[in-house]
Amino acid sequence: MRALSIDETGGPVLRDLPRPDANGEAIVRVRLAGICNTDLELTRGYMGFRGVPGHEFVGEVVESPDATLLGRRVVGEINAGCGGCDACAAGLARHCQRRSVLGILNRNGVHADCARLPAGNLHHVPDALSDEEAVFTEPLAAAYETLEMRAAAPGEQWLVLGDGKLGLLVAAALHADGAAPLLAGRHAEKLAIARRWGVQTVLAEALDGRRWDVVVECSGATNGLSRALALVRPRGTVVLKTTVAGPPDASLAQAVIDEITIVGSRCGVFPRALAAFPALAAAGVRVTDLITAEFSLSDGVAAYARAAEPGVLKVLLRP
Amino acid sequence: MRALSIDETGGPVLRDLPRPDANGEAIVRVRLAGICNTDLELTRGYMGFRGVPGHEFVGEVVESPDATLLGRRVVGEINAGCGGCDACAAGLARHCQRRSVLGILNRNGVHADCARLPAGNLHHVPDALSDEEAVFTEPLAAAYETLEMRAAAPGEQWLVLGDGKLGLLVAAALHADGAAPLLAGRHAEKLAIARRWGVQTVLAEALDGRRWDVVVECSGATNGLSRALALVRPRGTVVLKTTVAGPPDASLAQAVIDEITIVGSRCGVFPRALAAFPALAAAGVRVTDLITAEFSLSDGVAAYARAAEPGVLKVLLRP
Repeated sequence: MRALSIDETGGPVLRDLPRPDANGEAIVRVRLAGICNTDLELTRGYMGFRGVPGHEFVGEVVESPDATLLGRRVVGEINAGCGGCDACAAGLARHCQRRSVLGILNRNGVHADCARLPAGNLHHVPDALSDEEAVFTEPLAAAYETLEMRAAAPGEQWLVLGDGKLGLLVAAALHADGAAPLLAGRHAEKLAIARRWGVQTVLAEALDGRRWDVVVECSGATNGLSRALALVRPRGTVVLKTTVAGPPDASLAQAVIDEITIVGSRCGVFPRALAAFPALAAAGVRVTDLITAEFSLSDGVAAYARAAEPGVLKVLLRP
Repeated sequence: MRALSIDETGGPVLRDLPRPDANGEAIVRVRLAGICNTDLELTRGYMGFRGVPGHEFVGEVVESPDATLLGRRVVGEINAGCGGCDACAAGLARHCQRRSVLGILNRNGVHADCARLPAGNLHHVPDALSDEEAVFTEPLAAAYETLEMRAAAPGEQWLVLGDGKLGLLVAAALHADGAAPLLAGRHAEKLAIARRWGVQTVLAEALDGRRWDVVVECSGATNGLSRALALVRPRGTVVLKTTVAGPPDASLAQAVIDEITIVGSRCGVFPRALAAFPALAAAGVRVTDLITAEFSLSDGVAAYARAAEPGVLKVLLRP
């Protein structure tokens, strides 16, 4: 099968690899996959990953120990837990210390014709959703995880920092949930997408004051945390959605003095995201507005190059 | 009156200053005051403070707009809010952006014969409490603030990092509250005090694993946060009690990936601390075990020098 591959020299490169053996798991034929910023980071050495990247997909089950899945259109949770630890027992495979992660950690991903995942990770996609919508289930789950880690209370003022894909989806999730967020970013054309959805926006440089109840940091910038701390009110909350490799650029003394709560939030679960599509549509959100381009899997190297260009949002790969 | 004073050259120096005018507030004759690490930091330039330091005290009201306070033995909340903002309206004067802070910010402190505070900041000290106990009300309030910001749930495992005064008092508060904390530190003689109170202790270098539900960082060390993040379980909580001037020494990426919550916690309110003395005593905690030495106010310069020595816990000043 065709697959993109990351090796010591970075990559990706297009390779012809054997189709994975099921080994008790399910095999999915990929219908459509997305390129995430994490995939770009992997090509730059993040996680020391070697193998097939890609974790956003919609596909069709071609082999499965659970026969009811055969032939179904599915999306898949990316964390595969050990099944035996406290985290797994609590339904938190995504926090299992021995987990593998699709296309990120000890498990080949979906930028290929086929991929393998435990059958339990797969979720049936409702017929009403197009492939182009369903491929956003994973990043949407990450967006909704913001609300899992910090529920919105009536009357609170939420600010989302960063108008990349994640910031836009977090703002969309909050908007559909009725939290009326303000999205701050640096790119007029990206903010325009959010406004089309009915989300209020502002240019980041126009922000000031320390008045926000909750600031969701999605900018991924080195100074993202200190910027969020400068905008949140005393006793407020900063939700950190993006990882930054180095230490923050500022002391956390202010978080102590002002009793700020900083909440890390990452991957979410799929059922909430899959169930959210009607509410998103009703709120005016079309996730497909985030699609910048689609490439054939055979043109995957060019697709990665395109995804890395400034101003580009979602680039899709179709096997 | 006698007063210690911090000026451009550091200090403190002993000065003869006029007794403060009441100006609508209360005047307290200081009976006993404590030296806090913050006071030592002020002599090294923290907050750019100039004036009389000191915020831990028990005293007697000698002037007050509220006549019922006259002659009473009191302790005093250290934050004086503007009275007109949202934080003050919510009873959070300690988060008022225009507040003054006793001996720390725009308000002279209690390392003097007399000091001024709003009458509303003062709390009557029960007769059962000695001055030597009551002078710990402020640091105890800060310790109990840990539980205000993050209540302990049954069965949770709490770890306190740092065996300084604050770490010992946080461990004492958790112990009296039934949370059965483990206190980790580097000083056998300080850990011995906690054990005398019935608190379990461990040498910090013996800690490992990422299994604690809540880690309370009281070490004040530059690597305190990264150490706490290395010990807390995924989805667990780190409570930051101590401020560190510089940026953390590690990325917060792990806090995002493992969905850690980091909670800043600082000053607390006095009623809970005052009400806690019987529970502390019943649990075996004697806060007076923390007293290393007592000096006359006239020997305040020597008292500060002593307080800065390694291994020293609380140094008291008696006017």
